[in-house]
Amino acid sequence: MAAEQQVAIVIHGGAGTIKRENLSDEQEKAIKKDLQAALDAGYAILERGGDSTQSIIAAIKILEDSEHFNAGKGAVYTKPGKHELDASIMRGNDLEAGAVAGVSYTKNPILAAEQVMLNSPHVMLAGSGADTFSQLKGLEQVKNSYFDTPARYKAWQEVETKTKAKNADQASQQDVLDAEFKFGTVGAVAVDQNGDIAAGTSTGGMTYKAWGRVGDSPVIGAGTYADNRSCGISATGHGEFFIRYTVASDICARVRYQKLTLQQAAQEVIMTELKAVGGSGGVIGMDPKGKPVMVFNTSGMYRGYKTPESSKVAIYGDE
Amino acid sequence: MAAEQQVAIVIHGGAGTIKRENLSDEQEKAIKKDLQAALDAGYAILERGGDSTQSIIAAIKILEDSEHFNAGKGAVYTKPGKHELDASIMRGNDLEAGAVAGVSYTKNPILAAEQVMLNSPHVMLAGSGADTFSQLKGLEQVKNSYFDTPARYKAWQEVETKTKAKNADQASQQDVLDAEFKFGTVGAVAVDQNGDIAAGTSTGGMTYKAWGRVGDSPVIGAGTYADNRSCGISATGHGEFFIRYTVASDICARVRYQKLTLQQAAQEVIMTELKAVGGSGGVIGMDPKGKPVMVFNTSGMYRGYKTPESSKVAIYGDE
Repeated sequence: MAAEQQVAIVIHGGAGTIKRENLSDEQEKAIKKDLQAALDAGYAILERGGDSTQSIIAAIKILEDSEHFNAGKGAVYTKPGKHELDASIMRGNDLEAGAVAGVSYTKNPILAAEQVMLNSPHVMLAGSGADTFSQLKGLEQVKNSYFDTPARYKAWQEVETKTKAKNADQASQQDVLDAEFKFGTVGAVAVDQNGDIAAGTSTGGMTYKAWGRVGDSPVIGAGTYADNRSCGISATGHGEFFIRYTVASDICARVRYQKLTLQQAAQEVIMTELKAVGGSGGVIGMDPKGKPVMVFNTSGMYRGYKTPESSKVAIYGDE
Repeated sequence: MAAEQQVAIVIHGGAGTIKRENLSDEQEKAIKKDLQAALDAGYAILERGGDSTQSIIAAIKILEDSEHFNAGKGAVYTKPGKHELDASIMRGNDLEAGAVAGVSYTKNPILAAEQVMLNSPHVMLAGSGADTFSQLKGLEQVKNSYFDTPARYKAWQEVETKTKAKNADQASQQDVLDAEFKFGTVGAVAVDQNGDIAAGTSTGGMTYKAWGRVGDSPVIGAGTYADNRSCGISATGHGEFFIRYTVASDICARVRYQKLTLQQAAQEVIMTELKAVGGSGGVIGMDPKGKPVMVFNTSGMYRGYKTPESSKVAIYGDE
């Protein structure tokens, strides 16, 4: 391992309007506990010489299995009251990538994204085809109701009530966008002892989403990007902006072409360019030396990192 | 109109192994006639002061309605013998974008992408939800069999025969990728008298595609990108590479951050970076001054452009 090369992992559990007054001490503690568990699991793999892809998968699985985050168990409900999950993964040494959009029965969507990357000629699979593929590859399948949680059901009911009071067209525009948890997403980026970067993102999407909406999480270049020549990024936020601004790959492009530091590039994209057009959200990222960044233009982002020198988990912007 | 600003349109009808010996004179003539009709329709709108979005839609509709191209009528068949179409559109003045993946009943997928851009809070809709949305917006719906053509059916049968002779797993990897017409896609990029760039792409996808595979055409940043600050791009090729390398937005990023000309940026990405990893295909593009580019690393690309000074349609690499 080169002197300046360190192993490191950085994770997020979604950015958005996260305020102290809305989280009880118990909730805060439980969320931080799961973030720490994800960091520890991912870091342990790096520490014993494992690769960055396995590290981020270990971290993301824990976040998917936690009810506190909008990914896997705890995913929000679509308009018809079901769950459709998205995930993507990319590795920076060969730019291989995999993604699934709208899976309904795959317990851990990040594993389906990994299978697409490793064992299919494709990068992105959508809908029932993605579930079929995931089943074919022997991944654990669950009933769609496995993803149910009382908190997300309540959020769905609230939107449902509001929506039914209006006509469908008006409702589809604003209320859906206002839906709570719309920014919930989890992700991880790691660099291993070989200097290989990997990035992954997983989400339950937008509360009350309709029409097969695909957000940025399964879109390579928008929600996830990794390139050893520049950086690895996992994004969380108002997905439509992240797609239009190809946020993840644009940050890497600024590092690669403008020779900015990752921190500078992420700041410019998230705090200047996106903020100017109302694109709320944030990113976590890692440069090839193992330096983590966490940048968001919302009041909070569930997040954390672990390097050989330090480790931290945080929620609010002032932490 | 500034002195150096000109209106212009550039189109493609897919890149791939296109050889003289495989096309009869009649086929060549018919293909060039449709390319010319698309150019003329798009250019006429620009000439009378219309905007670039309407220009590219007019051109792409003609290519979708032509049986000669793998988009709209004439789309290839999926593994189950149906058609699933993808399209995307983006405008460079405000980076608004829209895309549909896997529509089955929308006669002109590019119009569905436009509706997503104009009249939904989303950027990307997939599967039956995208069809429902398109119907809700009053777009013309057809039976899936409308997209049938004898030539594409024959291609499907050939792959079906080969595949059945092997086990499913082997077949899924290689034969599917070898399937003819895998590079068929249509697209257009235009710049109007205001200097506004628009880009759009439409495809029937990959012959014998399974598992809900999504290619690069509906992925903003991969198959389509437009930004007045740099360029507009529509891509055609082996979609998985175009997603992993975010080809459309990477070309625009090199123009914006490295101050390359569009021709230089497109050459670097298509002829150097993609070619080195076996990523076959090409792009058409337009810079803000209305200078068209057409770059491909395959033996041919159905293509053409029209500016106030000149117009051309071509097929092979040596034309």
